[in-house]
Amino acid sequence: MKISIKNHKSIEGNLNDNLMDLFKNNQLSLEAPCGGKGLCGKCKVRIIKGQANNITHEEKNILSSDEINNGVRLACLTHPVSDIDVEILNWKETNGNILSYGYMPEFNYNPPLKSVIVKKGDLDFSNNLSIEEVINNKLNIKSSISLEVMKNLSNVVCDSDEIEVVLHNDDIIYVGSKSLNNSIYGICVDIGTTTVVASLVNVYTGEEINSLSSINPQKNYGLDVLTRIDYCNKDGGLKTLQSLIIDCINNLISDLCVENGIDKDRIFEVVISANSTMNHVFLGVDPKTLGKAPYSTVFRHGRIENNKDFNLNINSLGKIYIIPSVSSYIGADIVSGIVVTSLNKRNDKVLFIDIGTNGEIVLSYKGGLLCCSCAAGPALEGMNISCGMRGETGAIEKVKIDNNGVKIEVIGDEVTPSGVCGSGIMDIVGELRRNGLINNKGRFKTKDDLTKEGLENLNHIIIEEPSRGIILHNNQCKSIVFTQKDLRQVQLSKGAILSGFYGLLNYIEMPMESLEQVIIAGQFGSHLTKESLINIGLIPDVLKDKITYVGNSSKAGAIMALLSKDIRFEMDRIIKDIEYVELSTLDGYDKLFTKCLKF
Amino acid sequence: MKISIKNHKSIEGNLNDNLMDLFKNNQLSLEAPCGGKGLCGKCKVRIIKGQANNITHEEKNILSSDEINNGVRLACLTHPVSDIDVEILNWKETNGNILSYGYMPEFNYNPPLKSVIVKKGDLDFSNNLSIEEVINNKLNIKSSISLEVMKNLSNVVCDSDEIEVVLHNDDIIYVGSKSLNNSIYGICVDIGTTTVVASLVNVYTGEEINSLSSINPQKNYGLDVLTRIDYCNKDGGLKTLQSLIIDCINNLISDLCVENGIDKDRIFEVVISANSTMNHVFLGVDPKTLGKAPYSTVFRHGRIENNKDFNLNINSLGKIYIIPSVSSYIGADIVSGIVVTSLNKRNDKVLFIDIGTNGEIVLSYKGGLLCCSCAAGPALEGMNISCGMRGETGAIEKVKIDNNGVKIEVIGDEVTPSGVCGSGIMDIVGELRRNGLINNKGRFKTKDDLTKEGLENLNHIIIEEPSRGIILHNNQCKSIVFTQKDLRQVQLSKGAILSGFYGLLNYIEMPMESLEQVIIAGQFGSHLTKESLINIGLIPDVLKDKITYVGNSSKAGAIMALLSKDIRFEMDRIIKDIEYVELSTLDGYDKLFTKCLKF
Repeated sequence: MKISIKNHKSIEGNLNDNLMDLFKNNQLSLEAPCGGKGLCGKCKVRIIKGQANNITHEEKNILSSDEINNGVRLACLTHPVSDIDVEILNWKETNGNILSYGYMPEFNYNPPLKSVIVKKGDLDFSNNLSIEEVINNKLNIKSSISLEVMKNLSNVVCDSDEIEVVLHNDDIIYVGSKSLNNSIYGICVDIGTTTVVASLVNVYTGEEINSLSSINPQKNYGLDVLTRIDYCNKDGGLKTLQSLIIDCINNLISDLCVENGIDKDRIFEVVISANSTMNHVFLGVDPKTLGKAPYSTVFRHGRIENNKDFNLNINSLGKIYIIPSVSSYIGADIVSGIVVTSLNKRNDKVLFIDIGTNGEIVLSYKGGLLCCSCAAGPALEGMNISCGMRGETGAIEKVKIDNNGVKIEVIGDEVTPSGVCGSGIMDIVGELRRNGLINNKGRFKTKDDLTKEGLENLNHIIIEEPSRGIILHNNQCKSIVFTQKDLRQVQLSKGAILSGFYGLLNYIEMPMESLEQVIIAGQFGSHLTKESLINIGLIPDVLKDKITYVGNSSKAGAIMALLSKDIRFEMDRIIKDIEYVELSTLDGYDKLFTKCLKF
Repeated sequence: MKISIKNHKSIEGNLNDNLMDLFKNNQLSLEAPCGGKGLCGKCKVRIIKGQANNITHEEKNILSSDEINNGVRLACLTHPVSDIDVEILNWKETNGNILSYGYMPEFNYNPPLKSVIVKKGDLDFSNNLSIEEVINNKLNIKSSISLEVMKNLSNVVCDSDEIEVVLHNDDIIYVGSKSLNNSIYGICVDIGTTTVVASLVNVYTGEEINSLSSINPQKNYGLDVLTRIDYCNKDGGLKTLQSLIIDCINNLISDLCVENGIDKDRIFEVVISANSTMNHVFLGVDPKTLGKAPYSTVFRHGRIENNKDFNLNINSLGKIYIIPSVSSYIGADIVSGIVVTSLNKRNDKVLFIDIGTNGEIVLSYKGGLLCCSCAAGPALEGMNISCGMRGETGAIEKVKIDNNGVKIEVIGDEVTPSGVCGSGIMDIVGELRRNGLINNKGRFKTKDDLTKEGLENLNHIIIEEPSRGIILHNNQCKSIVFTQKDLRQVQLSKGAILSGFYGLLNYIEMPMESLEQVIIAGQFGSHLTKESLINIGLIPDVLKDKITYVGNSSKAGAIMALLSKDIRFEMDRIIKDIEYVELSTLDGYDKLFTKCLKF
């Protein structure tokens, strides 16, 4: 099967191949900040001639009706079923220094990393100057060269006519003979409590080459940050968790290098965006004070560390930049989210919610920033739920309930479901509520109640023993049941986040109606439809049309920080300017929380 | 035997015990910057009652006639021969912050190292500040706390009510629970090509507690710096030499700690004063460019390194300060010498000579500084001499020749001599010259010549086969002979240094007579009497009364740098302001050198 690409050579594929994969296999590197999940809308193509699979639900959400009418598709969701002529629409965007990533504002491109070639013949060694001084003079900087770099300096100067100098914030971090590939790369890592995402970025072009993700292997030592903090207090616990995350990042970097043919020694910086606990553990700094008096982080500011202390799979002389964080529970991931959504520079009233194991909320009003953190717990992500599982093959990801009963969609074709993932759980609760199967206190109604309300045709999906619940699917061996206890977990999460939402608004006496936008951040959040957010009651009805999605803004912020000193400077400003509201100390918070628990 | 000390308890000793040793054994720590060699004049005592050995030649040089008449002695050269009453005259000098060391000018005491105690109750954790910020705020500084310090921070803050913070140039380098001993210490190291000296200094009182020395174990890999540089080019050579010097320094530090009951973890800084090659090798930086194009050092400026990269026997979080150097052959040891003798601040005309394996000369005139380096070779120190040896038991250290022949003094009582040390060699050449046994070209006269000149009674000490020479001592098994070849080595050294001397004066057209002082620096130089310097022709006759000694100014400069930020700043200024003269490029230098070879 032939794929003819406008203004480009043709490539070959097989029936039902994914178009994005075909491009990648042929070194046509398209933007895919969302990792090819149909979320970012970056990989637009126009089908000029030929047939492909039907347009998907996700594409309908992202593409305008004009685009759809003109045959525009997302490459990552398109499978040609015949010879096909396509045009890559974002083709030209890779020119210039800065790409406008999916969910990334324009910003000043001035990366701390820079590679410069110096000719030995141009160096002036007079006046007893040291090699260090001579190179500094040539570059018109005043860098104190680190011990590790100095160790190689005399060899390079004796052996090379052209010397490559890599600078980081005007510090000379590497000196070597000019290499054939003079591109330099960075890795941007979002360390979530549950998921770790790493991106390979060409620092010179600003291009995000590829992005890979992995489960955070620390998960086996606790689903939430408090459990992890506790584990750090065990003998060797901190060391164990640190090794796990470093190994995990190293595996992702190795895969990125292999898949994209990049030499790891050309990677000179890793940017880390993480919540405060993950930040502390990554650095090997005991996070105990995050969870007990004095309830402080050990550090908050942006830090530059040396890779030699971490042995990440990049150049041994590389740097690691840790994005600054606000407090124990408002981490660097949220600071990233703030720059990605320009919350710190906007004049409208915007609420930013990162839904994850912890829910963090930032309210931007007239340039002021207010934030809080809600201990949502992992229920919304499908953890701590009896039938919960990750969003992988076999997971129920969509649930619909109508008069006839439960309809499910399962990840993977014709697979027997084995559990429910986060988006499925959100669906269940939304549908339970919509169909009146639970009361507003979050209790399952009995079969008797349903009968009284004329819903007896739904009695067959309700169970009352050993506890109340709803049957999602009956296997031969076992049933998948969502129980009263599971519902309680979700309810607590929803109550925590919604009360944070109202808490912030109340704090500055802002009426909800004056909000102009509600931004849903986070990889997980981007899987939640507006409907399920409204149905479950996480977002009040009146805001439905103001909801937008920003995807993994933690990773996007890390990319911005990699590529811009200005962004790093802004991030340092944000942590000084933002006001943190400790919900539990607010007057009447307990009452508010109880109210927010109601469906 | 009883030693009664004025204003102190009495101590016990045996007949002929050394008074200084008795003081040390009784924890009476006196100043002894010269290591108890009678050079610094710091350990003055007054004998009130009782008898001791006769006053020595060295004491007569150092003490005024008034002092001698009043019974003043140097403890290090005094051996009581009866019960004795003494007064320690420098007893009071250990008060206050700065001691006036033997050869050390007054300087501003403001050490980079500082220990501060912070009470946890005084810390203000409000506003989500991190522990790092809270401690910085309390100390009114802005230190970015290093990763290693952070790792311990939460434990210390949780567990301690009183927290010790150690600062280095306003950087927080250590945080711990307040310790019982809150003194902090530094180690000052002079790395010579031949000898390594380490001093233990109490940073809080400024007191030099003790000083120990050792042969530089790199000696087995070459006597001079060029041979060592060559060795670094061998596979693993640099690593070998670096390990040797680090082990050597560690042994000295261990001994200093044990002898003085100091916990190594209370030592927070090591200051290194060394020539440029030793500096590079200590840091593990290849010194190849010192010896070949571009004939540059890799670094010159003062450097602060982390002990974790060196594993010296001090606190693992401690710092290492490398004193700046001028060029490949004017090292940090000379920069030390310049501050110790205040050459950079004087208005008179002074010549400073450090006689060692390399001879470095600095000329100070009206505040200007000019310097050069002469490849003297190790002959003056007794190396590369057929009968040469170190100044240890069995070495001929003094030689006198008169009409009757050769008279020698040997180190150690009634020991059979086994060789000649540096000062003995200087004596030999001086005496050969004074007695007319050699001509002005440096050739031994024949027995015939001596007979013609009426010196036939010296014929018995002259040999002509296998080569010409002089017999210093006849053992049963072997004779100790100083040969024509040995003489040639000394002559080349003398020529190198003297031509540097004249070269600098000629460079600014300064007549020798206008010199107001000639300072002899270096541990070795302090063993050379004015007479031998004049006799051998190293210093012209007319300057005899202008000669002074400054001892080990490399070590003294390191102590000053440990105790004063101002001195470090001055040192950085010196390397910018000093002018280096490359002798070999001077007009007529070859002619000058040939002239200076003559006796």
